[in-house]
Amino acid sequence: MQKYCAECTSCKKQADATPHITTCASCGGILDIKYDYDAIKKSIGRKTLEESRDRTMWRYRAFLPVSDETDVTGGLRVGNSPLYKAERLGEETGLFNLYIKDDGFNPTSSLKDRASAMAVVKAAEAGASVIACASTGNAASSLAGSAAKTGFGTYIFVPSRAPRGKVTQLLVFGAKVISVDGSYEETFRLSAAAIERWGWYNRNAAINPFLMEGKKTVSFEIAEQLNWEIPDYVAVSVGDGCTAAGVWKGFYDLYAAGLTDKLPRLISVQAEGCSPINNAVEAGCDKLVPTEENTIADSIAVGVPRNFLKAVMAIRQSNGITVNVSDREILDAIALMGKTTGVFAEPAGAAGTAGVIKARGNGLIPKDASVVSIVTGNGLKDIKGGEKAAGSPILVKPDMNALLDGFEKAGVIPDR
Amino acid sequence: MQKYCAECTSCKKQADATPHITTCASCGGILDIKYDYDAIKKSIGRKTLEESRDRTMWRYRAFLPVSDETDVTGGLRVGNSPLYKAERLGEETGLFNLYIKDDGFNPTSSLKDRASAMAVVKAAEAGASVIACASTGNAASSLAGSAAKTGFGTYIFVPSRAPRGKVTQLLVFGAKVISVDGSYEETFRLSAAAIERWGWYNRNAAINPFLMEGKKTVSFEIAEQLNWEIPDYVAVSVGDGCTAAGVWKGFYDLYAAGLTDKLPRLISVQAEGCSPINNAVEAGCDKLVPTEENTIADSIAVGVPRNFLKAVMAIRQSNGITVNVSDREILDAIALMGKTTGVFAEPAGAAGTAGVIKARGNGLIPKDASVVSIVTGNGLKDIKGGEKAAGSPILVKPDMNALLDGFEKAGVIPDR
Repeated sequence: MQKYCAECTSCKKQADATPHITTCASCGGILDIKYDYDAIKKSIGRKTLEESRDRTMWRYRAFLPVSDETDVTGGLRVGNSPLYKAERLGEETGLFNLYIKDDGFNPTSSLKDRASAMAVVKAAEAGASVIACASTGNAASSLAGSAAKTGFGTYIFVPSRAPRGKVTQLLVFGAKVISVDGSYEETFRLSAAAIERWGWYNRNAAINPFLMEGKKTVSFEIAEQLNWEIPDYVAVSVGDGCTAAGVWKGFYDLYAAGLTDKLPRLISVQAEGCSPINNAVEAGCDKLVPTEENTIADSIAVGVPRNFLKAVMAIRQSNGITVNVSDREILDAIALMGKTTGVFAEPAGAAGTAGVIKARGNGLIPKDASVVSIVTGNGLKDIKGGEKAAGSPILVKPDMNALLDGFEKAGVIPDR
Repeated sequence: MQKYCAECTSCKKQADATPHITTCASCGGILDIKYDYDAIKKSIGRKTLEESRDRTMWRYRAFLPVSDETDVTGGLRVGNSPLYKAERLGEETGLFNLYIKDDGFNPTSSLKDRASAMAVVKAAEAGASVIACASTGNAASSLAGSAAKTGFGTYIFVPSRAPRGKVTQLLVFGAKVISVDGSYEETFRLSAAAIERWGWYNRNAAINPFLMEGKKTVSFEIAEQLNWEIPDYVAVSVGDGCTAAGVWKGFYDLYAAGLTDKLPRLISVQAEGCSPINNAVEAGCDKLVPTEENTIADSIAVGVPRNFLKAVMAIRQSNGITVNVSDREILDAIALMGKTTGVFAEPAGAAGTAGVIKARGNGLIPKDASVVSIVTGNGLKDIKGGEKAAGSPILVKPDMNALLDGFEKAGVIPDR
């Protein structure tokens, strides 16, 4: 066996994981990358990581599906996002070992940078010069940023509802942006047709099995940052399903290669208005029932998740918890997390924390459990969400009397 | 001599640098922190830095004005922003050793996080529980973020023209925000009156001599990231003057403590519509002539810079270059830097690069000079700037014919 190969999640048939591989040649199913963990074990361990000077996601290269010859140093500096112990947020929510993994702290401000860093590396291996994808926004801007750094052209398909901040980002990065007047599903289909027509490298996270492998590095970091004390629970917001599956796979990889001896339980958080993956887990079935895309958390508004099966399997394998949260709960989590931790999340980025708060409130998580909540994107990407969460400033003319009036009207009593 | 003390930039009188010190007790002048470099030399060197596992700005603690007893580990993870070799941007601009220091890659997405990390540490030393400041936006949101993480209350005064993104950030961080219907100067004065009235800890960068000390860590990082090969030029956008002075001081500190044997020349970049510091340097005089605040680059729209003298002295001492750039040149720099480096800058953040491009165009910088351009803030903070720089997406209905039409109308010829 090579270091890695591709295996179909449906028919289990294996194939060489060539750089341009997409879905299963036999049945069209979604592919998963499989590793020879015995080989990995020989090349990486806690000690080699401790000695590594590479602070990017590529420090985990032994666990990643790239050729030994490939140069990975030309991209944006992705990974090594902060893990904060959230003491005050924990106090407010009744959790005494709560951590926030701020993955909005990445070059284009979302966890998707991990996938896009992988995409440009695999596109280079495939000999491509143009990369394309459909995205609700973050995959797009991360691809555009990574491609700009490394010199690829990009064609990016976004649903027209994507927040202007995300679209502006990718225009600045020089991408050709196609804004599709339709749902995420329609946007995805149009991108697939265009990719086939012009032969571009495909960075759609479902079709391209390598991207989840980039995303899983977030879990390697969590494990290292906690000194290999694997948390009891890891909460993540779930849209397409690729991120949740990636988070699980990272912990699974460490376990399979003998670096850790425990696996966390996933807390799969979806929006009440768009929860097809949680619905399936709760119903105990493997059949996707498409839903509306009714939530302010645009990054997880995916009614027809392409990585449905991978996500459902990951949540089940982890003995995971499902939680659906309302838009109001998401907005409240943005504000509470902001003022107690100094981390500003976009709505989808705060959804995981909203789910943790709800699960704790429902008694699904014991108070002394160790819980990591992954923030998947920075709040600056969706100012409207932040505005709804946080209220308004006190407007005054530039003099002391106006200030005193302003404080009084706002009910603010200044203290030292 | 203690490890550090305060010295007036005007009358040169020295005083103990107590945590709550502001301006000179004798003449009201701006204070500068002075160090005993012989003592510093004994506790830090290239080797100790190489062995340090602290990747935050506090790895340079030996150069920073904090008490030995102070705990600096409770804040946001500030510093260690990426330095990218900008090969394609360099080709476009005729510079073969051009680097981008992306300091928008900080917890609240601006270089000001370095100053605010210092502010919360000094406020804690001073025994304060509330911190206040006036700011065009970035100092404010960075203070609000750092304060939220460490548990301080904050009162923040912003001019009402501050971009909504920045204001939203600080509201999410739980700050009491006072939006002042007036200029930056009027906003500053109102904050000063309120700080005096209620006795809050003062995080105004001019009045508080410690903040520049936080900012200077950006230069320590540049030096380390270039393997101690000090660049010929360092470009930075200049508003209040505190950042430019901080950048210079960082390189000066390294030189004075014997870690380096060369000093860079500053490229001081201001907006054509607001250039009081460059005006004074060019006129060879020390007198501030206030100007309009007429530029889209709000973070450097400071007509009455409080750190005027420190900045003018820094630019002169470095044998620096002054460059004023138009709003159009700033917008063009946003787009060019975005598509060639994958770094998205806010207008003030791109001004430094606009200045480098202009200085090179005017023959002020030789083509083989090593140049570092500091990006001081992330473009997500000011989406309107990015929108003006980058144009619009191609709008289409979700089908292939509409896509082909859209490409044709936009003059896009898809390639592989």
